[in-house]
Amino acid sequence: MRILIVGASGHVGTAATEALRAKHEVVGVSRSSTPSVDLLDPDSISRAFAELGTFEAVVSAFGSAPFAPATELTPEDLQAAFTGKVLSQINLVRIGLEHVRDGGSFTLTSGILAREPLPTGAAAAMANGAIESYVISAGGELPRGIRLNAVSPTVLASATGYHDTFPGFEPVSDYRVGLAFLRSIEGNATGRVYRAE
Amino acid sequence: MRILIVGASGHVGTAATEALRAKHEVVGVSRSSTPSVDLLDPDSISRAFAELGTFEAVVSAFGSAPFAPATELTPEDLQAAFTGKVLSQINLVRIGLEHVRDGGSFTLTSGILAREPLPTGAAAAMANGAIESYVISAGGELPRGIRLNAVSPTVLASATGYHDTFPGFEPVSDYRVGLAFLRSIEGNATGRVYRAE
Repeated sequence: MRILIVGASGHVGTAATEALRAKHEVVGVSRSSTPSVDLLDPDSISRAFAELGTFEAVVSAFGSAPFAPATELTPEDLQAAFTGKVLSQINLVRIGLEHVRDGGSFTLTSGILAREPLPTGAAAAMANGAIESYVISAGGELPRGIRLNAVSPTVLASATGYHDTFPGFEPVSDYRVGLAFLRSIEGNATGRVYRAE
Repeated sequence: MRILIVGASGHVGTAATEALRAKHEVVGVSRSSTPSVDLLDPDSISRAFAELGTFEAVVSAFGSAPFAPATELTPEDLQAAFTGKVLSQINLVRIGLEHVRDGGSFTLTSGILAREPLPTGAAAAMANGAIESYVISAGGELPRGIRLNAVSPTVLASATGYHDTFPGFEPVSDYRVGLAFLRSIEGNATGRVYRAE
């Protein structure tokens, strides 16, 4: 398959790339690649597909959200989490749909905070929960047999900068995160959330 | 207890009011009450608390989201769902916190679309999932023993206008929806999602 990975340079994107590149043609893009893709900028998505062509699978490993105690989260923080991790990834589905072949797939990235509490994690949790429920609902509504799933990892072993923020959470290997993407892309399910933990 | 219900005139608000008013002093407000409360207007929340005083429990039965096929949902639709059902309810927690007594509670409203797919339901699903994961995460972070839960109902038997939109979903009685609010308010848990189905 020809697979586009957006956010390829991050921890999750790197894990997905490692798992997929042995058997597939992987095209990785990010804000700093050529073409540059920023999911907050819909025009950059359109330009990238115009340049790169058609894919069997599209992966989003994109998204960030502010971390702060719940009582200190401002409406602006919550909006930033929604724009940065939810609208951004749904933009990729909306704009990318016509550039994915019949029977292809989208795989978005959510995270364990959708289901497990963590101090300072409420904005990220909100965004992750939004992505997971969107995928569950929209997964059955895409045309031409195109599927839509999410991978929901806990903190990655490779993301050492986050380990102190996730006390007691056992970090997951890149290998297991990569398997979740492989299962979404090479499987036949839609509307599923694949946990990597 | 003295309990504030925002969105008291809707189907969920009516069910919550019925369940709570036998044992508690229920103050119901809505966009059309005096004082008027619109959770999209933070000033209206502040004004209402200034007029109504302090509560042991605050309930939000507020929120709406557009229904449309997933491929037709625009960024504006998704933003409307986020603003209308997520930011709005979190505004109530943020602004209401200082008006809730020690050991009191907030109970927000999500919905079954957070976990069950429905054609045209992706924007509502996204909003419901966001609320549920927010509650799971923020529930342990409120000060003074104040708790935060959500009630997640399926379509209400009393909301006959929605029955065709939820094919094969067994409508839930007002009685069962009311029980979920009662359990959140009189229980001792926080960060919980109480399903009413």
